[in-house]
Amino acid sequence: MITAPALHVYDTTLRDGAQQEGLNLSVVDKLAIARHLDELGVGFIEGGWPGANPKDTEFFARAGRELDLRNATLAAFGATRRAGSRAADDVLVRALLDSGAAVVTLVAKSHTGHVERALRTTLEENLAMVRDTVSFLHGEGRRVFLDAEHFFDGYTSDRAYALEVLRTAAEAGAEVVALCDTNGGMLPGQVAEVVHDVHDALGGAAAQHEVRVGIHCHNDTGCAVANSMAAVDAGATHVQGTVNGYGERTGNADLLTVVSNLQLKLGHELLEPERLREATRLAHAISEVTTVPPYSRQPYVGASAFAHKAGLHASALKVDPDLYQHTDPGAVGNTMRTLVSDMAGRASIELKAREAGVDLSDRPEVVAGLLATVKDLELRGYTFDAADASFELLLRRTLEPGSLQWFSVESWRVITDARGDGEALSEATVKVTAGGERHVATGEGNGPVNALDQALRAALTATYPEIERLELTDFRVRILDASHGTDAVTRVLIETSDGETTWETVGVAANIVEASWQALSDGVTYGLLRHGVPIR
Amino acid sequence: MITAPALHVYDTTLRDGAQQEGLNLSVVDKLAIARHLDELGVGFIEGGWPGANPKDTEFFARAGRELDLRNATLAAFGATRRAGSRAADDVLVRALLDSGAAVVTLVAKSHTGHVERALRTTLEENLAMVRDTVSFLHGEGRRVFLDAEHFFDGYTSDRAYALEVLRTAAEAGAEVVALCDTNGGMLPGQVAEVVHDVHDALGGAAAQHEVRVGIHCHNDTGCAVANSMAAVDAGATHVQGTVNGYGERTGNADLLTVVSNLQLKLGHELLEPERLREATRLAHAISEVTTVPPYSRQPYVGASAFAHKAGLHASALKVDPDLYQHTDPGAVGNTMRTLVSDMAGRASIELKAREAGVDLSDRPEVVAGLLATVKDLELRGYTFDAADASFELLLRRTLEPGSLQWFSVESWRVITDARGDGEALSEATVKVTAGGERHVATGEGNGPVNALDQALRAALTATYPEIERLELTDFRVRILDASHGTDAVTRVLIETSDGETTWETVGVAANIVEASWQALSDGVTYGLLRHGVPIR
Repeated sequence: MITAPALHVYDTTLRDGAQQEGLNLSVVDKLAIARHLDELGVGFIEGGWPGANPKDTEFFARAGRELDLRNATLAAFGATRRAGSRAADDVLVRALLDSGAAVVTLVAKSHTGHVERALRTTLEENLAMVRDTVSFLHGEGRRVFLDAEHFFDGYTSDRAYALEVLRTAAEAGAEVVALCDTNGGMLPGQVAEVVHDVHDALGGAAAQHEVRVGIHCHNDTGCAVANSMAAVDAGATHVQGTVNGYGERTGNADLLTVVSNLQLKLGHELLEPERLREATRLAHAISEVTTVPPYSRQPYVGASAFAHKAGLHASALKVDPDLYQHTDPGAVGNTMRTLVSDMAGRASIELKAREAGVDLSDRPEVVAGLLATVKDLELRGYTFDAADASFELLLRRTLEPGSLQWFSVESWRVITDARGDGEALSEATVKVTAGGERHVATGEGNGPVNALDQALRAALTATYPEIERLELTDFRVRILDASHGTDAVTRVLIETSDGETTWETVGVAANIVEASWQALSDGVTYGLLRHGVPIR
Repeated sequence: MITAPALHVYDTTLRDGAQQEGLNLSVVDKLAIARHLDELGVGFIEGGWPGANPKDTEFFARAGRELDLRNATLAAFGATRRAGSRAADDVLVRALLDSGAAVVTLVAKSHTGHVERALRTTLEENLAMVRDTVSFLHGEGRRVFLDAEHFFDGYTSDRAYALEVLRTAAEAGAEVVALCDTNGGMLPGQVAEVVHDVHDALGGAAAQHEVRVGIHCHNDTGCAVANSMAAVDAGATHVQGTVNGYGERTGNADLLTVVSNLQLKLGHELLEPERLREATRLAHAISEVTTVPPYSRQPYVGASAFAHKAGLHASALKVDPDLYQHTDPGAVGNTMRTLVSDMAGRASIELKAREAGVDLSDRPEVVAGLLATVKDLELRGYTFDAADASFELLLRRTLEPGSLQWFSVESWRVITDARGDGEALSEATVKVTAGGERHVATGEGNGPVNALDQALRAALTATYPEIERLELTDFRVRILDASHGTDAVTRVLIETSDGETTWETVGVAANIVEASWQALSDGVTYGLLRHGVPIR
């Protein structure tokens, strides 16, 4: 464990992040994500709202038994006691204690309008709710953080009251007062001003109780990251966010972007460098648990973050990568990529071929031909950006027409059917010639692609037992909208694994099953190429 | 047309935006996008690089003949003359003239490292290239803008030279000197400092030649929007960006986010309010042309931007929407939505039912039951967030079990096959009972869903001729990763149209075709419900 950093890195993926449209995390999902967050080295993991959300009550119970956190401290989120009750008697407050979390983060109203119209209580009672709940939990040995909800709007509406809420919490024992831009409407300059003022206003209380000012931003103005950084610049020492910027509406501040900026650009030591190097891998691992497709243009960890396309840039990249990159992708575990595309100059094609182990530097006519072919295929919907294996197959077939023919396909067919409301079954039959013989095989699966995959492998296994180790591990479909009257085409990307590494192949066709077949067939072909299997 | 605003709104979707990974725009696509941009009311549309990119040469040629721009001025992008040549003799410079665009935007190196290592010429010659090309084009009657490439890194490396490049361009007749953060590594505070300095340094030249300082940011630090706004705050009066933040790597500054912030938060008048109200519609229309799926969490115009999930918030929303929204969604043509989800409290379910025209305020047991059903279905992969019609069907089937039975399904089957490399064909057979009779129908299509849709309609049309007006208009597939060993499920969202409006239905199953069938069948059912068709 690293020594306590100057800045708290506080992750709320499992609580605020979970409020994203379409996101549904099971308890098992949450435990998996918590492990990844711990691996990343964040200081705090806000696990949820035990008591209010039964799944979260279960999460904390199981976390205590099953999680072996090395770096992070678990925090339970919840509300101050209900108006007119005692903290010790409040069922939900008790649930926060019962969760066993060492940290409890309490959300409290700091906007007079919300106190009066949403909570429907008095300003004084709200302060008492804060005071009582914080001191009760503090007295029970918990570290208490305060989330001052709607703080910035509240400050604008009634500065004195907003500050009073913070002071009340600090005096009652809160270690952090996090200013939340709950509606997400703030801009960086405004945030800086307010945080400066809060930091000064808490001066006395801060010195006495060692209270940290925290920041919690949403991305409604596209400035969540900038707002968070402006706050740190103005004195905040506790930053909240979510991995991959998950969250309600436009999401919370992307914690990895904020951390990478602070660490790589401004020299703050937040995560051990070797942990920051795991950022890309862990951000993707977490998106696999959430099933939210990764956003390729995400700063630092996105698949496209260091992917260079313009032919112009690729020429310069050959000269010196630092001419076109703002930081070393390796620092966050990402890699520089050059993309093949119709914007690509010959330089991009050459670079890509070099990545595939083929030197085309003295074959300009081949490069030109490939470029033309790529442009044409891309017009039809193919994308080689995300399908390196397909590009390599195209390259090799261009260099040596008629090669890579481990098998030839006579026909394929898939039947999917169901009775009434019952479950559907897919059955595929594939007829191929391999090793000089005709093979007919049938496969069944929980879907057409699955069935085709089983059938193809069954048809090839006698000739190529090497097929055994290949496995279809991912399948992505995109329906490309029709432009101007022509039929829509489907683009399918398939990921195949041989147990050590994976590769992606693409298929494009009007028919989704045909597009899948293309990608599947190439995925298998590439596997045979990669393992140097002789054509039998 | 509005009077020239204080700020230039300069769109580079068709040039810099087009460099996004996976993006491929045809000339027809570009013309369509240009029309949408003009409708939005941007001041300038950078159409591409004529001469260097044949598609762009064609674009400008056709734009002259086919586009009737009411608000925007077309700009042609290109480079300064080659080192050691004359501007008038440079083929690519001539191509900029020949494009006919009233504005020419020249990209020039302003970083000594790039001049010497990428261009491989002298610092003096680079200045001459700027001077000659700007004055040549200015002399030919074009408005000339300069894009100072890698400006911020160049300024850090050699401030005097970077400023000299700008002065040279201004003195030669450039109307705008746009400072480009080409590598995207800047943070807002740094941008503000540099822009302040540039603005002061150009003071004399600015006063004399009325040169505007412009800003062009990329999102590599997650601060493109904030950087753009910091620049405006520091004196920039020309803002570049792309719609939906398209662009290489992490993309360019999202122009609509920047414009909305400046206009709705800071009172700048950039677009006529009635045009800004078209922002959501146009952002989506443009994404349909690019086929890049819209990013639901996009600020202002994203589908989720004003979608409220947490049960907590929904209670307050019933009280006063302004308590939880940072701005009026109507100002950008978006709408507030409440989401049904397992995070939803009863308040969300009630609100959603109210949206469907059903009052459940005095039926708490129904609300509780629905909530439990929704939570359970969502655990299995259903999402009602994006499938309002499916939620309404669930609601009505819960209130009246056995209702909504326009037809009952006996069985369905799809066969897809192909010979060799040939095109695949899908054929579906559907057996239903409707109007007291058994109907068996076959449909063909360019895919299994298409074929099933044709077959179902053929089977129902005799009993329900109202089916004619229904059309399947969109189809989205998401493979939900398996968690912890169980099989992956597929979620399909289908959009159906009756020519006036559209609705979305969802289907979830391990088998992609079965999931599609569920969504399809419900889409048709909802259409019959919506049109009050009696069960025959």
